[in-house]
Amino acid sequence: MAKEITSREENYSQWYNDIVRKANLADHSDVRGCMVIKPHGFAIWENMKNQLDKMFKDTGHVNAYFPLFIPKSYLSKEADHVDGFAKECAVVTHHRLMNDPDGNGVVVDPSAKLEEELIVRPTSETIIWNTYRDWISSYRDLPLLINQWANVVRWEMRTRLFLRTAEFLWQEGHTAHASVEEAVEETRRMLDVYATFAEEYMAMPVIKGVKTANERFAGADDTYTIEALMQDGKALQSGTSHFLGQNFAKAFDVTFLDENNQSNHVWATSWGVSTRLMGALIMAHSDDAGLVIPPRLAPTQVVIVPIPKPGDEIDAAADRIMNELREKGITVKYDNDKKRRPGFKFAEHEMHGTPVRLGIGKRDLANGTIEVARRDTKTKESVNIDDIAAHVEQLLVDIQDNLFNRAKAYLDEHITEVNSWDEFKEVLESKGGFISAHWDGTSESELKIKELTKATIRCIPLDNKQEEGKCVLTGNPSKERVLFAKAY
Amino acid sequence: MAKEITSREENYSQWYNDIVRKANLADHSDVRGCMVIKPHGFAIWENMKNQLDKMFKDTGHVNAYFPLFIPKSYLSKEADHVDGFAKECAVVTHHRLMNDPDGNGVVVDPSAKLEEELIVRPTSETIIWNTYRDWISSYRDLPLLINQWANVVRWEMRTRLFLRTAEFLWQEGHTAHASVEEAVEETRRMLDVYATFAEEYMAMPVIKGVKTANERFAGADDTYTIEALMQDGKALQSGTSHFLGQNFAKAFDVTFLDENNQSNHVWATSWGVSTRLMGALIMAHSDDAGLVIPPRLAPTQVVIVPIPKPGDEIDAAADRIMNELREKGITVKYDNDKKRRPGFKFAEHEMHGTPVRLGIGKRDLANGTIEVARRDTKTKESVNIDDIAAHVEQLLVDIQDNLFNRAKAYLDEHITEVNSWDEFKEVLESKGGFISAHWDGTSESELKIKELTKATIRCIPLDNKQEEGKCVLTGNPSKERVLFAKAY
Repeated sequence: MAKEITSREENYSQWYNDIVRKANLADHSDVRGCMVIKPHGFAIWENMKNQLDKMFKDTGHVNAYFPLFIPKSYLSKEADHVDGFAKECAVVTHHRLMNDPDGNGVVVDPSAKLEEELIVRPTSETIIWNTYRDWISSYRDLPLLINQWANVVRWEMRTRLFLRTAEFLWQEGHTAHASVEEAVEETRRMLDVYATFAEEYMAMPVIKGVKTANERFAGADDTYTIEALMQDGKALQSGTSHFLGQNFAKAFDVTFLDENNQSNHVWATSWGVSTRLMGALIMAHSDDAGLVIPPRLAPTQVVIVPIPKPGDEIDAAADRIMNELREKGITVKYDNDKKRRPGFKFAEHEMHGTPVRLGIGKRDLANGTIEVARRDTKTKESVNIDDIAAHVEQLLVDIQDNLFNRAKAYLDEHITEVNSWDEFKEVLESKGGFISAHWDGTSESELKIKELTKATIRCIPLDNKQEEGKCVLTGNPSKERVLFAKAY
Repeated sequence: MAKEITSREENYSQWYNDIVRKANLADHSDVRGCMVIKPHGFAIWENMKNQLDKMFKDTGHVNAYFPLFIPKSYLSKEADHVDGFAKECAVVTHHRLMNDPDGNGVVVDPSAKLEEELIVRPTSETIIWNTYRDWISSYRDLPLLINQWANVVRWEMRTRLFLRTAEFLWQEGHTAHASVEEAVEETRRMLDVYATFAEEYMAMPVIKGVKTANERFAGADDTYTIEALMQDGKALQSGTSHFLGQNFAKAFDVTFLDENNQSNHVWATSWGVSTRLMGALIMAHSDDAGLVIPPRLAPTQVVIVPIPKPGDEIDAAADRIMNELREKGITVKYDNDKKRRPGFKFAEHEMHGTPVRLGIGKRDLANGTIEVARRDTKTKESVNIDDIAAHVEQLLVDIQDNLFNRAKAYLDEHITEVNSWDEFKEVLESKGGFISAHWDGTSESELKIKELTKATIRCIPLDNKQEEGKCVLTGNPSKERVLFAKAY
């Protein structure tokens, strides 16, 4: 089965596509740019979603749901916002089909044209701030801490499963505050939530930073980001948290009376992560044998395979072990399908990324042992059957830690300080990863570097060291280094 | 606060709208027919969703996600299906906006017209069966037991919050089977899941039955339904489970090789419930003081109100009670907002439907008692503080039971057997509810009765008693009674 996958070395991009398809994560649909998320992929996304949702609620947020459609005129109310989204949106113009007078199926009914076209939401700031106007009148109504889980559509011309699709699933938090300080604090808090989730659940180390003006969300005063590094040395923006200032409050006329009865515009944030995280998860850990999933996000943490096939004695041992593991809150499945052989099952569970595989054979049982295989290192050991539950419990922690540490070591090795333009180009081409370099702070230099090398400024790290230096491109003075990389 | 609600007697329809708005469940949006589900409403829906999702998984189903958009030509592939949905769908025709040459915001870019229009899914049979063709080739691939949680759009001309909206949230199960028997069994199993959910969680008794041909889902061979009765005597279809035969398999050419290597078309089911259940829940239990929620679906089961205001001693007692309740898995909130008085809080929690309210005052504490108020009966009692957790635990069970029993008694009282046309009209107008009457089995009589009275056949109950009789309208011979009602 593993042979069906292209190796990373041979063709990283094809390796990624192979994993997504062979591990049953997603498929292209017949609808341009839209994917089908298959059950195994969706189960991982559900685990991500449930954990994130818990973290949002633990920080005081509640969920709500806003319309899929946005009146065209709303988009125009915030000038930067419309520039950012008008060029890639799905437009609903009619509300009825009718039988083709020529007898060829159905056609759009021209008499059912909408007075104003509706946009399928690419993001929901406009429709939400239009609603908040009715919900906010006094400081007592603030803060408003709302999140929504939803599908959104951006008409991307070049799509890749999970990484860039026309329709994707995401969450979007939209909060409203009485003061600038509180809004900035919220923006940073949610960035921290994303970073904690990425590191502790996805086992994926990230760099927290702020975007340059060029890379900001359309309508934001500041965009914060978590940036991860994939195994091919390219960066992947994994979550963003935006400080929106009073831009949307002004565009939609959302004001509140403060404690002194003064009317002020409301301060806003928005923040989101999407099914793109699935792409990040895949590329952060997987290998040439298939998917690797951190135990804390694995739909099935442990699979038990009977060798060579199920039978009374083996079934009884499997039942006992399953009960012991479930008591510890571990998810476990017994793969007792008689139609398939152990070798096939091993390959399949390896491809699907199940963190731990237990093999139970009659000879093992006679010896009182179980074969324990871990997916991350592909090593096996024989463990006393009486110790198996405690062993597996610790092993899942070890695997989670190992995946993080491995990715962290890779990240640390791939942040390279450079001090000249030649060095910049050389490191970018030969080694990849993040390049820490001085930049003169101008949009011109940033765009020129992108044009020359395809590298973009991923972020200005938070709490960045201030040091005098010279821009790697222009030699103009600079106060700090920023992180460049090629990116997904 | 309660005065803000129209009474049921005065105007039932206005009472419903008042509850939805004043209990912060949902709002109309600026987008025609689309609602905003507010945090309190969404929290109830989340509880419904979580419980249903668990029940689907316990019966072997997995979740997946299919595209929002359906190519127009797919709709036409199943003849009945397109007739059922073409007249009320949102059609995407373009994928880009551009600046208006006249300077008035943005307009549709005529050069970005899609080759084939896309329909925003009104239901997903077509896109899913088009996908299943690639997933199914052998009997080993069956059954396929997949569910999706999604938003769908049907361009309804007359909308009501939750009950009938252009966009709504739902789940749609789509299963594929090797035999007709297995598919019928699945259809019935999911109807049972819905009935169990309605009765045990929503505390809403339902009648299980099968629809007449006129009332079937467009593309189904049989539609099963659960029908509930609202407090105004109108029925509400609360969930449907469809046996689709081989209709979609034939339309999308989905075949499998059976164990004898023979090629056959696959058998299908689909089943769904939606945010319409929110409307059912509201109308099943609520009263003139606001929302009433069964404890098993309440976002907050118990609220503690300090009287007249928080203070060290009361806070400490509240903390202790909260810990005791949380240990029992009960959700509890301490409403210690100092800006609002107890009377305001009482009215608000009553409006929001919180099942149990505990009042803690200094005098109570001195006596070692807590005031316990239940939302369903609006009665109060004084309970010893040491017994409070056990008391509340039992009380939540009692409230759940009481709501069900109350609704069940109402339902039982409102199923009336009638044997003449005059009696039919009389009962329908004066008493409402379900009318059990003989019908000659023809579509003509069914439609004539609807035209004359607005009553429709809600269902032919499962395991219906067979008895000779005469059609209430035509006098023609009939083998069984069916249930008529006016319906939402």
